[in-house]
Amino acid sequence: MVELAKRVHRLRGLALREAEAFLVVHLPNVFYLTGFSGATGVLVVTSSESALFVPPLYAEQARREAPAARVRPAGADALASAAAWLARRGPLRVGYERPRLTLSQFDVLRQELGPRTELVGLTGIVERLRAIKGQAEVASIRAAIQVAARAFEQVLPMVRPGAREIDLAAEIEYRMKRQGSSGPAFDTIVASGPRAALPHGRASRKRLARNELVVFDLGAILSGYHSDMTRTVYLGRPSARVKKTYRAVRDALERAREAVAAGVPAARVDGAARSVLARRGLGRYFVHGTGHGLGLEIHEEPRVGRTSEATLAAGNVITLEPGAYIPGWGGVRIEDVVVVRRRGAETLTPLSTELLCL
Amino acid sequence: MVELAKRVHRLRGLALREAEAFLVVHLPNVFYLTGFSGATGVLVVTSSESALFVPPLYAEQARREAPAARVRPAGADALASAAAWLARRGPLRVGYERPRLTLSQFDVLRQELGPRTELVGLTGIVERLRAIKGQAEVASIRAAIQVAARAFEQVLPMVRPGAREIDLAAEIEYRMKRQGSSGPAFDTIVASGPRAALPHGRASRKRLARNELVVFDLGAILSGYHSDMTRTVYLGRPSARVKKTYRAVRDALERAREAVAAGVPAARVDGAARSVLARRGLGRYFVHGTGHGLGLEIHEEPRVGRTSEATLAAGNVITLEPGAYIPGWGGVRIEDVVVVRRRGAETLTPLSTELLCL
Repeated sequence: MVELAKRVHRLRGLALREAEAFLVVHLPNVFYLTGFSGATGVLVVTSSESALFVPPLYAEQARREAPAARVRPAGADALASAAAWLARRGPLRVGYERPRLTLSQFDVLRQELGPRTELVGLTGIVERLRAIKGQAEVASIRAAIQVAARAFEQVLPMVRPGAREIDLAAEIEYRMKRQGSSGPAFDTIVASGPRAALPHGRASRKRLARNELVVFDLGAILSGYHSDMTRTVYLGRPSARVKKTYRAVRDALERAREAVAAGVPAARVDGAARSVLARRGLGRYFVHGTGHGLGLEIHEEPRVGRTSEATLAAGNVITLEPGAYIPGWGGVRIEDVVVVRRRGAETLTPLSTELLCL
Repeated sequence: MVELAKRVHRLRGLALREAEAFLVVHLPNVFYLTGFSGATGVLVVTSSESALFVPPLYAEQARREAPAARVRPAGADALASAAAWLARRGPLRVGYERPRLTLSQFDVLRQELGPRTELVGLTGIVERLRAIKGQAEVASIRAAIQVAARAFEQVLPMVRPGAREIDLAAEIEYRMKRQGSSGPAFDTIVASGPRAALPHGRASRKRLARNELVVFDLGAILSGYHSDMTRTVYLGRPSARVKKTYRAVRDALERAREAVAAGVPAARVDGAARSVLARRGLGRYFVHGTGHGLGLEIHEEPRVGRTSEATLAAGNVITLEPGAYIPGWGGVRIEDVVVVRRRGAETLTPLSTELLCL
């Protein structure tokens, strides 16, 4: 609760320079500022109040989960209720989340607030706060990673020729859930053989076969916080090409990890991974960015890509996940989560990155 | 593919009266019109073309999944690429999805299209098409319901005093996934004892106990189509109050089902359920609407609530899910999915609605 109050305080420092009230509609942002995890709710932050508007169906839950906010009754359209309340208080400038609000929601605001209120679109303010994780947040992400890592290790004995990708994905998700994960952080990827060349190879009915690479990409959600982990295993005795490709991706991961520190441009971390793969002749097979922040959402700030403009800051939690996807042949991706510290990266993922041959 | 072409044709009939091109950003709508299931993509429909803009990472998948659309290369921001393409063709009026587009996306459109292009906000056009399901769509929803029903029946032997809610939810989701569900349609609800009074009682670490009501609310996703089913069971020999409450909710469901037919206002179906519960003294414990459409999303048109303005049409697929939530005591909800037919409701949910005592 103290932590939540601090977040709202920091938000005021940023948002209330530009407006007298700030409207939060993006649910992960509402959760971050209040603790409310329901599916409908709008937060209004003014200099003196943090008011959470929820329909009757969520009132009880809001009071329990968000003791630091003042829970106010709303109709079915919580935004309309929040705007009507603001209109009665008569602020002249109301800030809103420009990348989150839809045009239809904007219409509701305009109508409720009337022509004299100025609407001020603000971008990424709560997201900027969320990018710097506190100790408890890092602990939640670490716990979510451990749940995923444990589930993966428990399922390894079933990773054999003949097993179906979707059955392995089902086993992984089952084990994560029994350890308290509220759901998979994303559709679990199990991509074997030529399917390993698909960066988003959601588990299919395909059966694993001997002499195939298998990419596993999985994550759990604990207390709202997501984890994300990729490991690639080989079924059989790896050929020279498999070993060389794997080693290149692993070296790319290590160079990226070494590049991480507070004050470093995110694009430089991406470049560190990318240049390793380019030197090994795999540059054109690395078709995505090197990583992304994660937390209350699976993808958040900062992005770690070629064109990222972000500078890493202490407390960022990011994935590092270089890969090589060779059409028709297969692919390799290895992904760890690290916390950005003043002088380097602290790795949260507990598992080895060595090539596992089963 | 013929079906997809028909959908685009129908969309043209609706959207291109108001504009020369229509921009689709909402991903379930993009999927409905093209078959593309990736996480990034923008569709532009003109009188002569259906152009799908995806970044390189999704190009291969788009070509495979969306043969009827013309896949066009996009940068990381597919919307900017789509808008730049439109700008070169120079239409004067471009339609967009007003309830889906964010203000930031609107900024991108404005910038790429220039001041001479008129942007026309349209509401719910693809959603209106989606509300009327074709035969193949009904078959997919039916299959998704059967997967959920089978998983529920398989887990029933584990529903015993001492079992944890989350373990039962994990078992249900595991069995759905092994039958081909791409994921749970929503966080599976297992809410026992006093928690059964929470309409959204996501499974917790609570253990089931004797003489408790247990609400199960679960759904699978097959070929993109969602299912949704609720059953309430009792552990032990039910008291008169349990039986009476259950019977009231069940009667409410049956009255709602009887009220369903093409041409009937959705609000009348809600009223049918609500009046049963009111007459049995449970009116104030029924705190949500009677149902909702479902399909590519778990909640879609038409809504079946007190203030619904929709009129049911043949081919709508809706849930009917009256409930009674009595704080401190427990709750009952029973939910079936039905297809609206000319003269009545065709029920897709295969399981009995009788009170099951374990």
